[in-house]
Amino acid sequence: MYPESLRELIECLRYLPGVGEKSAERYAFSILDMDEEKIHSFVSSLEEVKKKVHPCSKCNCLTENEVCEICSNKTRDNTVLCVVEDPKNVFLFERLLGTFNGMYHVLSGLISPMDGINPEDIGIDKLITRIKDNHFKEIILALKPSIEGETTALYIKKVLEGLDLTVSKIASGIPMGADMEYIDAMTLERALTDRKNIE
Amino acid sequence: MYPESLRELIECLRYLPGVGEKSAERYAFSILDMDEEKIHSFVSSLEEVKKKVHPCSKCNCLTENEVCEICSNKTRDNTVLCVVEDPKNVFLFERLLGTFNGMYHVLSGLISPMDGINPEDIGIDKLITRIKDNHFKEIILALKPSIEGETTALYIKKVLEGLDLTVSKIASGIPMGADMEYIDAMTLERALTDRKNIE
Repeated sequence: MYPESLRELIECLRYLPGVGEKSAERYAFSILDMDEEKIHSFVSSLEEVKKKVHPCSKCNCLTENEVCEICSNKTRDNTVLCVVEDPKNVFLFERLLGTFNGMYHVLSGLISPMDGINPEDIGIDKLITRIKDNHFKEIILALKPSIEGETTALYIKKVLEGLDLTVSKIASGIPMGADMEYIDAMTLERALTDRKNIE
Repeated sequence: MYPESLRELIECLRYLPGVGEKSAERYAFSILDMDEEKIHSFVSSLEEVKKKVHPCSKCNCLTENEVCEICSNKTRDNTVLCVVEDPKNVFLFERLLGTFNGMYHVLSGLISPMDGINPEDIGIDKLITRIKDNHFKEIILALKPSIEGETTALYIKKVLEGLDLTVSKIASGIPMGADMEYIDAMTLERALTDRKNIE
């Protein structure tokens, strides 16, 4: 029913996460209404992004350079390393946290034996090499609180045994401001187990 | 914080309707994960759509040809003309309606003296010429039930006076299945005024 090129654009927009038929149609019509200049910048940014953006050679976060902004920033604390599972998390943490000034290391996901994802698949070797070649005092594991996250954290903790550094992981529990009614059982169990004395 | 080309892509995605910073970031990361082929088809559909798609010379609906599929379909009933305010509505009606088999005419919006939009700005001349040059028996106005929609409908009705045809407009009222609690005053007034005897 739609003209063919409009149909194709709608199909392409449907590849975007969470975009169904209706949103894709809405986006496609708005693109038809855009001026040439906007479409041109859209096209060139689509073409450029994959050519220019690649993992940082040190931490695997995304960058257009050999080494990313954070890794090349001399004012950051290079004794603390925060390990995350996805480059998105680095950008998220940097935006949300005012206090963290350490370095990052990005894994390619989490260990998941059920899905056939082993330590070598998520780049743990590179992490270990980096830790051994540098002078970190603390490794903070900021991984998802799930079975895979726990497995990965335990694995990293184990291979780092014997090295003179602290391995910590970020706390899990009840989110600030959450309605207790909507907390799931696993989160509540964890919050209870990890309870802290009030000082 | 983001690499520049990723930042630019996020900016472009924000031009899409209803897309905020978070969705744009999510879309941009998913584009980074797409394979070259998908990105290529995305780029080419963006480039093609504006070049290929233009208004049908008869009805103003979108097409890649001189005359659109509906206008060139000889099996359709060319005695009934449904007037809409946006090409999107043609695609919507065709998808939702199994019964309508007439022709369409697309205006460029609605008359709105408050916004300085006059009959000549929405292409009413072309509609009138088309009606006069053809043998329609009925003109159905399927315009939004708003002040602008009513104004436009009344205007069209007036300029068509004296011609041997019926001018109707689609009913407004309470949507099927709607919760009466959430009906606004104007809709309820209209539904009451336009009440029908039960036969």
